[in-house]
Amino acid sequence: MKIVLAQQNYHIGNFESNTQKIIGVIEDAKKQNADLIVFTELAVCGYPPRDFLEFEDFINACYNSIELIKKHTDNIGVIVGCPQRNPVVEGKDLFNAAWFLYNNEIIGVAQKTCLPNYDVFDEYRYFEPAYNWNVIEFKGKKIALTICEDIWNLGDNPLYRVCPMDELIKQSPDLMINISASPFDYDHDEDRKEVIRRNVLKYKLPMLYCNTVGSQTEIVFDGGSLVYDAEGNIIKEMKYFEEDYETIEVTDDSLQLTDKEAKSEPKSVISKLSTVIQLDKDLRVSKQTDPSKIIGYLTSENNIKQIYDALILGIRDYFHKMGFSKAILGSSGGIDSAVTLALACEALGKENVRAILMPSQYSTSHSVSDAELLSQRLGNPYDIIPIKNIYESFLSSLKPVFNDLPFSLAEENIQSRTRGNLLMAIANKFGYILLNTSNKSELATGYGTLYGDMAGGLSVLGDVYKMQVYALAKYINRNEEIIPQNILVKAPSAELRPDQKDSDSLPEYDVLDKILYQYIEKRQGPKEIIAMGIDEALVKRVLKMVNANEYKRNQFCPIIRVSCKAFGVGRRVPIVGKYLG
Amino acid sequence: MKIVLAQQNYHIGNFESNTQKIIGVIEDAKKQNADLIVFTELAVCGYPPRDFLEFEDFINACYNSIELIKKHTDNIGVIVGCPQRNPVVEGKDLFNAAWFLYNNEIIGVAQKTCLPNYDVFDEYRYFEPAYNWNVIEFKGKKIALTICEDIWNLGDNPLYRVCPMDELIKQSPDLMINISASPFDYDHDEDRKEVIRRNVLKYKLPMLYCNTVGSQTEIVFDGGSLVYDAEGNIIKEMKYFEEDYETIEVTDDSLQLTDKEAKSEPKSVISKLSTVIQLDKDLRVSKQTDPSKIIGYLTSENNIKQIYDALILGIRDYFHKMGFSKAILGSSGGIDSAVTLALACEALGKENVRAILMPSQYSTSHSVSDAELLSQRLGNPYDIIPIKNIYESFLSSLKPVFNDLPFSLAEENIQSRTRGNLLMAIANKFGYILLNTSNKSELATGYGTLYGDMAGGLSVLGDVYKMQVYALAKYINRNEEIIPQNILVKAPSAELRPDQKDSDSLPEYDVLDKILYQYIEKRQGPKEIIAMGIDEALVKRVLKMVNANEYKRNQFCPIIRVSCKAFGVGRRVPIVGKYLG
Repeated sequence: MKIVLAQQNYHIGNFESNTQKIIGVIEDAKKQNADLIVFTELAVCGYPPRDFLEFEDFINACYNSIELIKKHTDNIGVIVGCPQRNPVVEGKDLFNAAWFLYNNEIIGVAQKTCLPNYDVFDEYRYFEPAYNWNVIEFKGKKIALTICEDIWNLGDNPLYRVCPMDELIKQSPDLMINISASPFDYDHDEDRKEVIRRNVLKYKLPMLYCNTVGSQTEIVFDGGSLVYDAEGNIIKEMKYFEEDYETIEVTDDSLQLTDKEAKSEPKSVISKLSTVIQLDKDLRVSKQTDPSKIIGYLTSENNIKQIYDALILGIRDYFHKMGFSKAILGSSGGIDSAVTLALACEALGKENVRAILMPSQYSTSHSVSDAELLSQRLGNPYDIIPIKNIYESFLSSLKPVFNDLPFSLAEENIQSRTRGNLLMAIANKFGYILLNTSNKSELATGYGTLYGDMAGGLSVLGDVYKMQVYALAKYINRNEEIIPQNILVKAPSAELRPDQKDSDSLPEYDVLDKILYQYIEKRQGPKEIIAMGIDEALVKRVLKMVNANEYKRNQFCPIIRVSCKAFGVGRRVPIVGKYLG
Repeated sequence: MKIVLAQQNYHIGNFESNTQKIIGVIEDAKKQNADLIVFTELAVCGYPPRDFLEFEDFINACYNSIELIKKHTDNIGVIVGCPQRNPVVEGKDLFNAAWFLYNNEIIGVAQKTCLPNYDVFDEYRYFEPAYNWNVIEFKGKKIALTICEDIWNLGDNPLYRVCPMDELIKQSPDLMINISASPFDYDHDEDRKEVIRRNVLKYKLPMLYCNTVGSQTEIVFDGGSLVYDAEGNIIKEMKYFEEDYETIEVTDDSLQLTDKEAKSEPKSVISKLSTVIQLDKDLRVSKQTDPSKIIGYLTSENNIKQIYDALILGIRDYFHKMGFSKAILGSSGGIDSAVTLALACEALGKENVRAILMPSQYSTSHSVSDAELLSQRLGNPYDIIPIKNIYESFLSSLKPVFNDLPFSLAEENIQSRTRGNLLMAIANKFGYILLNTSNKSELATGYGTLYGDMAGGLSVLGDVYKMQVYALAKYINRNEEIIPQNILVKAPSAELRPDQKDSDSLPEYDVLDKILYQYIEKRQGPKEIIAMGIDEALVKRVLKMVNANEYKRNQFCPIIRVSCKAFGVGRRVPIVGKYLG
């Protein structure tokens, strides 16, 4: 049996585009005499469709796509993800389903059992979990068809009380197929392989795993679809961060159906595995456990390279799916805007990224010269707009209200918001999206100005700690110096008052990032973080900063997610909450 | 048996305050010789605690509160909501539980079965649904103890496959007690009574229903705890929008345990009900179904009065729980800022609300005079800061970039963002929270400027349609004219260019609000809305505006929720989504 895996990039709710994309590759697969083609989870509508699922009209559009796709299934089986209406009156109105189409018929529908509802996932908001399981017979083979999270419920501390493959294995399937929309994060890059390998070894069946690719607002799907034989060997590993297609020949030999008996005792296989990683609820928490290795881990080349690729895809897809081609950003001469600018030029083309340099009376001379040198090297257009006059007109207008009160945060923020206003004005005038340049360490501690440097339509570095921003800069400079050395070595500063340094307000970034990682990614409390050997007062001060600034992050733009716990939709904290605040 | 219902206002994560509040009233109840005191859902930590629940340290703090409360339970039973660790390895790590404490012991724990995960609710993100049910015996009475949503799974189209009272009734309880955190919205004000009445009639048992009160960021809990006898009569209806306590004598007589047999056939009772309203999934959708009555319904005195009370509580609690006492807002002479200002003065005290009037060259003369008259009547402080000079310094600085391009949206937004910057500067200088004045119709259509008039820490009117804002103004003026008549009658305008009117860009508000209500609250698609007799092109234009402006609302502040579908945490739409966009 010849099976094609189609790892495609969909656009949520863009039924015309998604359906055409699916039908196009079905027609290609027919020319190759493929027996079956496999698409990903909720392919027809894109993943995650979120509250669009609450509209009858949207579900009708999904069903309409299935009808259109079905017409192209003569002599080829098609597995495609699409919501399904729940025919039973009790429970939610929809299933998250994998539809099996063949010869203009629906020959089977598998429903998702394990509905992820943590971090960025909200599937139980919309879907009823499956409670019936049946293999689907196709050309003499029994296929155990599951959807994404369905195969993740292994290990010592399972998140769900039901494991759908434990049910399907009772019907003696020949092959497992899983369709997914499994997002990227650098913390979990090897987990997916281990999960599939463990399923394969537990059930003694080969698995075809087809994952989606592309960025949907903040969530980056990285592709990397996989084919495993029944022994736990990788047969195919598809491309990461781009669309890809593979054709797999599945023969009776490759199915290796030699050990039928072992299937009835799957539990025993687990204990025989040599490498047992923890596959359980704690997958939602980052894996790094040794505090002394955190910074090294965060900035490792393996992680930084993946983050780079994810950010490029994240920027590119956001602009493309929003119907924009050009970006603008404030270029301060600091490391954050330098890295953002370099990434944007790579993602969108240098001619499509406009940098605006907006020095004030508190800016050092190298701020402008470093930023100019960067844009000259990148070859992107830039302008210089000093903010002194505007700033002074604000102070003059506010004089009757401020009187002779001393310079304070208010005056600092006026400068930052003046820059925000200038950037948005140019963006509005010419049709750009403003790229935000804040990093995760700043966002965590609230070290930024709402409507000022926190302005923007998309945050590029909002899930990247400051120490990782430096590592990204070095990665960008790996072949030649693009980001000027001076930008890498100068002390970070907001330059909103004379001689200001980040270190006036924040701990050194290597300590800060370690605390933040333990608190945000690993959900450790103050006790555990202090036990790492960090000063108690400092830990409490940092956690208080994180919690007290929830109100600021609540108004922040989408952040391209690269870690297992990004600010935004995947982290939901009450603004009025008093805990550690 | 003497039972006290304690309808209290908690602060999320403020364990010290919440625990003291709970213990204080337990001690009061002891003095009254009460047998039992009932607190609300997740009382010890406040509802909704959201991702704080993912911290071991937070759960430890919850358990610590239970220990402290337990010490005060000599000779008094205490039912209190608190997360419980799940002792079983499969499934999520927590239950949403009602703890029954008595004589320094835990004599029972009831776990929540029906976990709401729609709109603002995310309970399945944290909790495992119960799958064991037991009545709790106390002083010779069997109590069927449930939590909030557990009693809502009645009707023709239930959201959950299990109904916990159907299980508990098998153990012949004498009494039902439900502890809740059930939020207010004007669409559902009578549903709660009907749900309780139907439970009472179905199971032929009295019910004590104890609901929390207070606003938590955006969600307003309105109290209104209820006691029903077994015949479906209301015995007590507690206060709305404020804390309240009631003592109920439950006698064998009042329990009316006369019809034990009927309990085994609960289904038959349902069909005997004279008034059957639809209690099912569609509760999540607004009840108003007749399109011609929508505006009348939205602006009805019953709804407007409740919205008024909810907004006052919402403002007051947000400031109190954030540790602020003073507000600032831009007062434009328009209806939205006038209503916001009047509400804020009522909620916080007139001396604590500072209005800033910021006319530009495009402002009409009455804008300033109307806003001044309003503040003179309310008695709140105000300042006038013209923006002309700042605006011109922006234009001058941008001249090298804008060249001679014609006046456009960019120039309009500069003015709005200049006002945002001035307001935030004063807020930062003196420690105010900026109140946002945008209404729901504007937010829906994107008729507002990010970082300009969309700035603010809390949105007062973001869940109130324009037609309802007018009705609120009339309600505020019900005894005397507070909001000047001129503000009520003038044509709405942003005044960002000469002779601008809202109606240049938007349909008339009575038509617009009707479309928006059908789309947002009732989740109707274009076909259904066009079928109401509204012009097809207009409907499509409006729906496209709503969807295309998701990116703006994504950066908006928390909105006090008064409808069944507010923008914010309860409405989750993909920004890059193309559906109807």
